[in-house]
Amino acid sequence: MINKITKNTKIDFIENLRGKNATFMLALSNTETANIEGITQAGIPGMLHLTPTLDSEFVATGEVRSLEDIAKTPKGVPTPALITRAIHLLKPFHNIELLNLGLKNPPKVEYFKIHNFDIDPSDAIDQDAKIDAQELFQKGIEFGQNYTTSSEYIILGESVPSGTTTAKATAMALGYDCKDYFSSSFKNVPSNIKDTTIEKALNNIDQNDEIFSILGKVSDNMLIFNAGFILGLNNKIPLILAGGTQMAAVLLVVNKILEVMDGQIETSNLALITTSWVYNDENSDIEALLDMLNFPINSYYSDFDFGLSAHPALKLYDDGEAKEGVGAGGALVYGELNGLSKEQITSKVETFLG
Amino acid sequence: MINKITKNTKIDFIENLRGKNATFMLALSNTETANIEGITQAGIPGMLHLTPTLDSEFVATGEVRSLEDIAKTPKGVPTPALITRAIHLLKPFHNIELLNLGLKNPPKVEYFKIHNFDIDPSDAIDQDAKIDAQELFQKGIEFGQNYTTSSEYIILGESVPSGTTTAKATAMALGYDCKDYFSSSFKNVPSNIKDTTIEKALNNIDQNDEIFSILGKVSDNMLIFNAGFILGLNNKIPLILAGGTQMAAVLLVVNKILEVMDGQIETSNLALITTSWVYNDENSDIEALLDMLNFPINSYYSDFDFGLSAHPALKLYDDGEAKEGVGAGGALVYGELNGLSKEQITSKVETFLG
Repeated sequence: MINKITKNTKIDFIENLRGKNATFMLALSNTETANIEGITQAGIPGMLHLTPTLDSEFVATGEVRSLEDIAKTPKGVPTPALITRAIHLLKPFHNIELLNLGLKNPPKVEYFKIHNFDIDPSDAIDQDAKIDAQELFQKGIEFGQNYTTSSEYIILGESVPSGTTTAKATAMALGYDCKDYFSSSFKNVPSNIKDTTIEKALNNIDQNDEIFSILGKVSDNMLIFNAGFILGLNNKIPLILAGGTQMAAVLLVVNKILEVMDGQIETSNLALITTSWVYNDENSDIEALLDMLNFPINSYYSDFDFGLSAHPALKLYDDGEAKEGVGAGGALVYGELNGLSKEQITSKVETFLG
Repeated sequence: MINKITKNTKIDFIENLRGKNATFMLALSNTETANIEGITQAGIPGMLHLTPTLDSEFVATGEVRSLEDIAKTPKGVPTPALITRAIHLLKPFHNIELLNLGLKNPPKVEYFKIHNFDIDPSDAIDQDAKIDAQELFQKGIEFGQNYTTSSEYIILGESVPSGTTTAKATAMALGYDCKDYFSSSFKNVPSNIKDTTIEKALNNIDQNDEIFSILGKVSDNMLIFNAGFILGLNNKIPLILAGGTQMAAVLLVVNKILEVMDGQIETSNLALITTSWVYNDENSDIEALLDMLNFPINSYYSDFDFGLSAHPALKLYDDGEAKEGVGAGGALVYGELNGLSKEQITSKVETFLG
């Protein structure tokens, strides 16, 4: 089932995409924020920066290539890339494209389109992320303006370790009253370290900082670039932001930039789609985040869960240990729009786990 | 199974469409004929004119929107829109487009393409339908000539309350010897009222009436417009007329216009597809109707039935209470061409009935 998040959401937007083909685009970046001790439970200790690289390799090729010792893959919660890859196997995306928005290790894939923008990984926000936000935003705008595709719509996912921390810092730094609307990717959120990091980040902001100075200090590449991408694309092709609170933060950035620049945006071809795990998360509030926007936004969540699986690693999703990422929610809705059943998806994900 | 209707039918036409994507187009119109007391058992008493509106809303969005009191939906034979929607959920059409050919209430859908032609609902044929048939036919021609699509073929269904009555009147008025080849959508055909209506309609025709004067008095918007559409499209893209005797009547109109104008039509890309319920109907003869055409026509029926269902509402189809409409036969063949099983289709239709 595809369910609405915000009240102004029109089911017609998503129903009209039933049966249409999609490009799955994956925005990848690293921020040093992920290396702050104890800030995240995700990924492989000491190898956290590899997560977006490995996610994109796995979604595109079914192989994890940038890690030599496969035994070091995490034992705990499986990456949502498994869900996205399962959908791609059952009902392939028309196209997969990767956005390298500052990766320490570019994905080792050939043939697939990798968009490179000469962007460096960003620094940790507790010091100063040191992003040239204006330039990065401009790169996003130009990419959106020039982007053409033979696909009928775009599903944009992301993989950014510690991205929920930078998203929350960004929204708060921009003045949104949203302290309790963000949570981590994980159940037992290590709140103290996260909150301390965000506090330090906010303290770096100067009263006189204009919006791009603020973003450059506390944000991440994915958030800033995609805000530009949305504005550059300018509603010319349906775009689904496939993600939870991080994608909501991209919209909050767009919203604030429009506010500052006294601009407008047409959003009839824009939507956000996430998972039931995000929608039902008691530690965050995706609907409240979207309700802070000055423009209407179609938003949906897939009601998919792992209730049909007995696999303990997958039950962790239903227990709230993992919620979203790598476009999983958007991929699930894409699967449903193309006739896939919960049984099919569950079985396919299980084949990856052995 | 996909079976042939007429002997000259080539199975290769339909086999060549296996795996290709299709636009499902739904022609919708109202004729006052439906409000003649007792002429039809279809739809909701006093709300019959809403049937095409509700059918199109349901196929496109899964929701029935133009009826406030949902309790008033018919309890009896379920609309064939359920079949078409089930196919769309299991193996989506590439696109859904609606043709507003004179509706009292336009469907409340957004995003989906609704083609508007500034056509009014037509009057009852027992008086005089008062259609400007020449102008309407010309609108169909132009639509066909200008129509472009990224889909590989078109499936054209219809929803026109009392459309079997106007179809029979039209064919008879054009001089076809087809009195016993038409039946109603329903088992216990209220023949007296229907026949009286048709008789009155035929009595309105003047000896000197040329073809468009005749059509303007006794026909309906769907029949006339689609005859033009077929001729305007001119074989440039495969077109499947998804319907029973009404779609056969569209072809009879085309045939007569060509006869009068001494014209030709290439029909290698044209076909008619209907249901087993129409093909096996003892009160009508779709094959005999198609055999009256001067051009060859590929024609098929799906052997789908509700033999796997225990649901009493669905058994009514197998009992001959309902037969076709909303492109159900064409949708079933599209499903079969894309690997759907009778079990899958039956189960999906059942989910709508609770």
